[in-house]
Amino acid sequence: MRDILEAVAEGTVTPEVAEATLRGYVTNEAGRFDATRCQRSGVPEAILADGKTLSEITTLIDASIETTDRAILTRVGAETATDIREHLAETYPAAAIDVDERAGTVVVHTQQFEPPSLDASVAVVTAGTSDAVPAGEAGTIAAEMGASVERIHDVGVASLDRLLDQLPRCRDQDILIVAAGREGALPTVLAGLVDVPIIGLPVSTGYGHAGDGEAALSGMLQSCTALSVVNIDAGFTAGAQAGLIARQLDAARQS
Amino acid sequence: MRDILEAVAEGTVTPEVAEATLRGYVTNEAGRFDATRCQRSGVPEAILADGKTLSEITTLIDASIETTDRAILTRVGAETATDIREHLAETYPAAAIDVDERAGTVVVHTQQFEPPSLDASVAVVTAGTSDAVPAGEAGTIAAEMGASVERIHDVGVASLDRLLDQLPRCRDQDILIVAAGREGALPTVLAGLVDVPIIGLPVSTGYGHAGDGEAALSGMLQSCTALSVVNIDAGFTAGAQAGLIARQLDAARQS
Amino acid sequence: MRDILEAVAEGTVTPEVAEATLRGYVTNEAGRFDATRCQRSGVPEAILADGKTLSEITTLIDASIETTDRAILTRVGAETATDIREHLAETYPAAAIDVDERAGTVVVHTQQFEPPSLDASVAVVTAGTSDAVPAGEAGTIAAEMGASVERIHDVGVASLDRLLDQLPRCRDQDILIVAAGREGALPTVLAGLVDVPIIGLPVSTGYGHAGDGEAALSGMLQSCTALSVVNIDAGFTAGAQAGLIARQLDAARQS
Amino acid sequence: MRDILEAVAEGTVTPEVAEATLRGYVTNEAGRFDATRCQRSGVPEAILADGKTLSEITTLIDASIETTDRAILTRVGAETATDIREHLAETYPAAAIDVDERAGTVVVHTQQFEPPSLDASVAVVTAGTSDAVPAGEAGTIAAEMGASVERIHDVGVASLDRLLDQLPRCRDQDILIVAAGREGALPTVLAGLVDVPIIGLPVSTGYGHAGDGEAALSGMLQSCTALSVVNIDAGFTAGAQAGLIARQLDAARQS
Amino acid sequence: MRDILEAVAEGTVTPEVAEATLRGYVTNEAGRFDATRCQRSGVPEAILADGKTLSEITTLIDASIETTDRAILTRVGAETATDIREHLAETYPAAAIDVDERAGTVVVHTQQFEPPSLDASVAVVTAGTSDAVPAGEAGTIAAEMGASVERIHDVGVASLDRLLDQLPRCRDQDILIVAAGREGALPTVLAGLVDVPIIGLPVSTGYGHAGDGEAALSGMLQSCTALSVVNIDAGFTAGAQAGLIARQLDAARQS
Amino acid sequence: MRDILEAVAEGTVTPEVAEATLRGYVTNEAGRFDATRCQRSGVPEAILADGKTLSEITTLIDASIETTDRAILTRVGAETATDIREHLAETYPAAAIDVDERAGTVVVHTQQFEPPSLDASVAVVTAGTSDAVPAGEAGTIAAEMGASVERIHDVGVASLDRLLDQLPRCRDQDILIVAAGREGALPTVLAGLVDVPIIGLPVSTGYGHAGDGEAALSGMLQSCTALSVVNIDAGFTAGAQAGLIARQLDAARQS
Amino acid sequence: MRDILEAVAEGTVTPEVAEATLRGYVTNEAGRFDATRCQRSGVPEAILADGKTLSEITTLIDASIETTDRAILTRVGAETATDIREHLAETYPAAAIDVDERAGTVVVHTQQFEPPSLDASVAVVTAGTSDAVPAGEAGTIAAEMGASVERIHDVGVASLDRLLDQLPRCRDQDILIVAAGREGALPTVLAGLVDVPIIGLPVSTGYGHAGDGEAALSGMLQSCTALSVVNIDAGFTAGAQAGLIARQLDAARQS
Amino acid sequence: MRDILEAVAEGTVTPEVAEATLRGYVTNEAGRFDATRCQRSGVPEAILADGKTLSEITTLIDASIETTDRAILTRVGAETATDIREHLAETYPAAAIDVDERAGTVVVHTQQFEPPSLDASVAVVTAGTSDAVPAGEAGTIAAEMGASVERIHDVGVASLDRLLDQLPRCRDQDILIVAAGREGALPTVLAGLVDVPIIGLPVSTGYGHAGDGEAALSGMLQSCTALSVVNIDAGFTAGAQAGLIARQLDAARQS
Repeated sequence: MRDILEAVAEGTVTPEVAEATLRGYVTNEAGRFDATRCQRSGVPEAILADGKTLSEITTLIDASIETTDRAILTRVGAETATDIREHLAETYPAAAIDVDERAGTVVVHTQQFEPPSLDASVAVVTAGTSDAVPAGEAGTIAAEMGASVERIHDVGVASLDRLLDQLPRCRDQDILIVAAGREGALPTVLAGLVDVPIIGLPVSTGYGHAGDGEAALSGMLQSCTALSVVNIDAGFTAGAQAGLIARQLDAARQS
Repeated sequence: MRDILEAVAEGTVTPEVAEATLRGYVTNEAGRFDATRCQRSGVPEAILADGKTLSEITTLIDASIETTDRAILTRVGAETATDIREHLAETYPAAAIDVDERAGTVVVHTQQFEPPSLDASVAVVTAGTSDAVPAGEAGTIAAEMGASVERIHDVGVASLDRLLDQLPRCRDQDILIVAAGREGALPTVLAGLVDVPIIGLPVSTGYGHAGDGEAALSGMLQSCTALSVVNIDAGFTAGAQAGLIARQLDAARQS
Repeated sequence: MRDILEAVAEGTVTPEVAEATLRGYVTNEAGRFDATRCQRSGVPEAILADGKTLSEITTLIDASIETTDRAILTRVGAETATDIREHLAETYPAAAIDVDERAGTVVVHTQQFEPPSLDASVAVVTAGTSDAVPAGEAGTIAAEMGASVERIHDVGVASLDRLLDQLPRCRDQDILIVAAGREGALPTVLAGLVDVPIIGLPVSTGYGHAGDGEAALSGMLQSCTALSVVNIDAGFTAGAQAGLIARQLDAARQS
Repeated sequence: MRDILEAVAEGTVTPEVAEATLRGYVTNEAGRFDATRCQRSGVPEAILADGKTLSEITTLIDASIETTDRAILTRVGAETATDIREHLAETYPAAAIDVDERAGTVVVHTQQFEPPSLDASVAVVTAGTSDAVPAGEAGTIAAEMGASVERIHDVGVASLDRLLDQLPRCRDQDILIVAAGREGALPTVLAGLVDVPIIGLPVSTGYGHAGDGEAALSGMLQSCTALSVVNIDAGFTAGAQAGLIARQLDAARQS
Repeated sequence: MRDILEAVAEGTVTPEVAEATLRGYVTNEAGRFDATRCQRSGVPEAILADGKTLSEITTLIDASIETTDRAILTRVGAETATDIREHLAETYPAAAIDVDERAGTVVVHTQQFEPPSLDASVAVVTAGTSDAVPAGEAGTIAAEMGASVERIHDVGVASLDRLLDQLPRCRDQDILIVAAGREGALPTVLAGLVDVPIIGLPVSTGYGHAGDGEAALSGMLQSCTALSVVNIDAGFTAGAQAGLIARQLDAARQS
Repeated sequence: MRDILEAVAEGTVTPEVAEATLRGYVTNEAGRFDATRCQRSGVPEAILADGKTLSEITTLIDASIETTDRAILTRVGAETATDIREHLAETYPAAAIDVDERAGTVVVHTQQFEPPSLDASVAVVTAGTSDAVPAGEAGTIAAEMGASVERIHDVGVASLDRLLDQLPRCRDQDILIVAAGREGALPTVLAGLVDVPIIGLPVSTGYGHAGDGEAALSGMLQSCTALSVVNIDAGFTAGAQAGLIARQLDAARQS
Repeated sequence: MRDILEAVAEGTVTPEVAEATLRGYVTNEAGRFDATRCQRSGVPEAILADGKTLSEITTLIDASIETTDRAILTRVGAETATDIREHLAETYPAAAIDVDERAGTVVVHTQQFEPPSLDASVAVVTAGTSDAVPAGEAGTIAAEMGASVERIHDVGVASLDRLLDQLPRCRDQDILIVAAGREGALPTVLAGLVDVPIIGLPVSTGYGHAGDGEAALSGMLQSCTALSVVNIDAGFTAGAQAGLIARQLDAARQS
Repeated sequence: MRDILEAVAEGTVTPEVAEATLRGYVTNEAGRFDATRCQRSGVPEAILADGKTLSEITTLIDASIETTDRAILTRVGAETATDIREHLAETYPAAAIDVDERAGTVVVHTQQFEPPSLDASVAVVTAGTSDAVPAGEAGTIAAEMGASVERIHDVGVASLDRLLDQLPRCRDQDILIVAAGREGALPTVLAGLVDVPIIGLPVSTGYGHAGDGEAALSGMLQSCTALSVVNIDAGFTAGAQAGLIARQLDAARQS
């Protein structure tokens, strides 16, 4: 601890990094950034942009980059994405920035950042464009944890041919995340056809009775196959769970 | 009306038949039997055995046979079925009796009964044995309305090969009733593969969250295909709706 | 397949049409248009305008017209309808355009389009103006599938005289779609009076306990008559189911 | 108060009556009997038999008869009714006993009891035998409050002719209690045809989604007519509310 | 009927009045106005302003005044009220206009209108200002049906003294409508203290679990007293039910 | 630790007590008994009898008495209570046994047990006999934690006089637990009249919509007063929370 | 009472204070202010700003300050806070004003106000910034009732080290209010570690199934520890309940 | 196929095995046994004993052993277990039988059966004995798929010390299944402490609001950690999902 404090005194370590090292997270007026979450639980901390002001977001981005050389943002609207990009261009001109507008995610890596790389594959399977946000989130988180991530789109239960076309690609993966809204039948149908573990991701589409993803969630929970499930629209959770499994697979392959 | 009363006076018509003719239904201590339901709405009256005493059931059977030369019973337990069969053997020794133990239905036709016969086909498709009761009810009602009824079993979304095997038979029907419990995905998957109208029949299997058929019901209501749906376990309703459509088809074919 | 590719090479077939022919649907930045849905399942693909930008809508209209010579839009707001009309006037000056403002539907037929025509009638029965959107959707879809569609308005359970006045018109139809909000009793009352198959369409009117169509939906599911039901406000589904039955009737009449 | 205590001392008043006079209710090992409820709120206290032992029931009957010269029991099963009748025959041989097996009610009047008599009429309208228990309870309570009670059975929305037949009788009443299970449409249909105030009484029939009276309750709450409603199966409450209105009408007619 | 048509031909009767007389209601582009509802069921038709454009509202006002010499509007916002007042001042300068801003109601009587007057009293009891809208609606409808209406405010279960102060006023009424939000205990507490019939009116205040009036509704349905209940915020229904009872009382007093 | 093990070796301490001392709880075939719960969180461990066999119950009683010189049982049926009493009489003839049949609790103290005694009072207020089980549980737990516990029965919102009679007793307490079923209004009414902290205890009485305590729970959560609440029928939790507050008060008074 | 009226006549007492003294609350066009709530039930009246106009808010502030020398506002948005501050600066330049922007509370004390001071401590424990509003409300109310209030932030179940760090501070308190959203596990985990009474405060964070605080509420109600709970986001209620307990502790310590 | 049919003809292959080989499953009067499920989806077929007669169970056991040399039964009651054991002893005297009474599972391996063995570990973590059935099911299925399964009991959130004691064992596993009833906080707390993937298994303990596992399920879905979840009591699903991940790990380790 003394080393760190001396480094702070010498100015070679910022107080933020020192706090993160000693206490595990940074607290500022925009909230708390859990800088050691990744070491502790294997899952990187992300910044949920929705519902925060731009100033709160950039403060948290700074805390994230200061302490982990990376920032991951989810549920970023189109306008906010532009503002964030501007802030990043000014403040971290050398950083690599990846904006996925459809998925609402932004990822920043400084030059110092050493991205993890796992010998394990995750595919995110979706039926259509309405699944883009949670599916995109899931893919981003799994990729940031080091998995090699593939996206398999346009696979709906109502057009079985297309689904059968994609079976070989699905069977080649280590883990599948399958997103579906409305009646949520896609993960069940796929789970009858492949022996890869599947994480069901219900999406808040649908209207009327049990709309907003409730029918999809209950359908996946009632599935007669070996699915596990995350909450409605919980792309982050699905991606993180897939990432944790990918880490185990990578360790197994390294051993 | 005078004719009928004179016939009663002469003893050629029972008071029960007279009441049914004049008022449309028979009331006795076991409840009310709606003898003219079939003429009025095209759907025959059935006797729900579940929750009634044997004496109430036989009283209603008698009212039904007196006025319509037929009796249809649903939700009949195994023991009750035996008792009913005995009663029928004694009281209507010449009648044709059809007991479907798995479906819990009993159908009685006197020799005078002229069964309707429609030039229209209905198939009842099920995934497994747990769908037997509502599916059986549906088939019985559609058949009693005159449709030619086929039963297609063991078609589950988790074993797609078998489902594809049955597609030609499904495509040959005029109407499909598709029963499914738990996540209820079968009607959706089938509706993407055939252009026959499908009535979804959710079944009260499943446990835990949204068990007892609620997940199946909400999945069918949320389906991205052109399904219509009946209540959970409402085999009678599904069969009757299919029967009404079959009547229209038959009339069209006769014309 | 080679024919098609050669036709593309020669420029007589657009890549979009080629993709639709070979893969069954067109994918562009606005989403996916399932161009062969109609051949496969008998139900035409429609474009849900609500929640899409004008540019996404017009892109999908173009895909639809390119591949099927027709476009069907639902849940179109008044302003968007005007914008769409302008786009159509410019791009497809010779096409026939039918805008139903109250129902929120827009239908476009190019000159090449050969509208299907079925020898089968569907009536959409409503209680009042609050049922206009889902009822209008239902009528439009059934009509686009070729049924001859009648609209019977102002038939509420609280003014029985008017309902009895309309009975003869109801009895003349092949199929009835009956829309109702709040307590949703209309389909039940009608089903006791006619022997035509009825599809209940619950509407999201009502407030307080079980408002937004839930009371209507559960009332229709609990009905003691032979109704089948679709989800709350699911006009498209009701119309498509009626259309599929109409196709069967038409085939029966042709045979 | 002294008078009462002296009367107890002299043995002309029992301790139970004294307690009821002074405190308003009797407490014994079987629970509490609110002897002055009728004076205070106009509604007589009744003994809910369901869930109590025979000994608890007879103890409460005794408390009721001691203090009010009357006992009203609801939800009495067939066997318990026989046991109660025996107890009454022994203990109160001169009392008038009225057992309604279908409604599950038992009413006892001693010779001293002066039944209230109101110049006001209440009809309890039902669709069928499954409404018997709550409808019977409602009729019993209204009658015990002094209203002249009529029972109008077999009036269902699915057989409109019969309903129209009964309209004149319905229009002659001061107040209607309308019981209905499943979709609960009867009160709404009647309220569109008469201008008598109607209390809707949902009944716990039905199964599947929103079964056990929930669909009936929500349908009545959503009704587009001027209904008020009581809880599912709350026959006592419906009868008591009708009784209170009957008391107001009687007072108006006396004035 | 000929008389009416001749009067139309002569111009002494407008086509709208003629339609209303012959068919019972007026249909125009703003919806349907049920002009004979009051004769048929005793309850006047009201115009729900919420969700309608000003032009739709004024069209319906005109239809109402043309056919019944009166217009009743509910759920009128402050701005809309001003616009309506202007329209009325221009179009019906001689009419009496009563705007209750807090209750969101507007009532118009032409000079020809003969307001009904019943010898019966209704009080609307509320706990606080948040109950103003449904309570005001209830009072307005009961008054328009002819009852003499009193408003008793600021009676909450949490300040029992004030409630006890108001008891004598409550006991003097023929009928009480008791509005309450959140836990909805006021009608239960009052019903233990008075023998006047009470209609419970749950109000959509409250937040969190069972907020928006659901706790109040279920509390009133579970009440151990003789309440009947209407839907959440259904002031119109409560007032109309009270008005129907008031009509019976008035008739009793006239006889 | 060595001391304990030596004591075990010498036979002055049983292995069970040793395990409890070292690990904090005893595990046997009937489940786990958390022997140090009381030291750790201030709340004694109780044995829930409902759903266990007699042999499981007596095994847990033995573990409890071995380690804490006391046993507390809840939800004990009448028959099981008799069996338990027999077991106790044989095994712990010198122990003091307290069986409360109505509350379903059994408490055993060995002669060695030094019951805690707190200078703080808790009253459990109930409306009637149906609240006996959870209210009794609450009182027993608070008493076993040392509070002086009073029971105030027959205080219902529908008989306000009786409630006002009991106010002085309520105001004299340090903490009130107020149990109520059906509409659950009692805690709200009391909280408006006293300034003692109140814990609301909803009871699973009631039927129909929001029956089984849900209306009572949501009413207490929505209360406009300063209540805190426990789960439906959670008498143990209410008593334990009151006991913890009583401990704080006792400590304050000792200081 | 005469004294007060004479003082009003002399102008030494305002009519508002006189009304509050005589009737217990002030009624004006903005609603009702319950001026004697604090004397009666120990809990001060607060003004809920959300949903009120600025003019209504300032009118209620004036009524509060006139009658109690204090005003407490909750759910005040940032803009409204500025407006209120301006109004206060003008109208009560000598008053002490405390604005907590994050918690959305404003507290005003005139110079005459004698703040209560209790010898009892309450801590409000939170997991993160999303709990700020209800937690802040809880702290403000407890402080205004005189408790010494501590705020313990950043204690989440997912970072157990930090939670263990804060245990000594938690154990030093008399009462804990523990706020938690999403799965709401924090109060349960803390209750296993301390013997201080805990009030659980569920917060309306979370999304998808059982979002908006419902999962947190049901988790706290199901907790296997001795928690009591308030409604979702009911910071006021939690603070007031803690304040009432603090008053008892203070009285105990003074005695 | 000819080979098989010839083998049947020769009697070296039973018709059942032939059917299973050719069609993938065996159908008999007790239902359908999906003999190739394991090859197709990696998960072995199990026989749910609950709700089946002994004769149905033994018929399915025979089908299972005939076709796969193994039988797995779940939800077997104590009595049924004895009966099954007898049947097995007679029919398959050489088979290895493993009955877990607490978990309600029975596993039979013939001498020919070659149990799969995976180089991957799964631990099933539980809080107490009430989690035994679903947790046992989960462990049995994972073990039958070849994983090495450990059971870690008595780890509750309310006794944190014990939980911390078990952390090293938890961290050594490849996958954790964490079962929890009531508030279901255990998986969340564990997921903050380990970086092993966790499958949450909610258990149907608890009572009152959101009892029967609903609170546990919603708490796990709302968890702020990277959990995936299965349905309430779905031990089979949790074990199968863990088994599929174990298969991937084993393959990775073999490669």
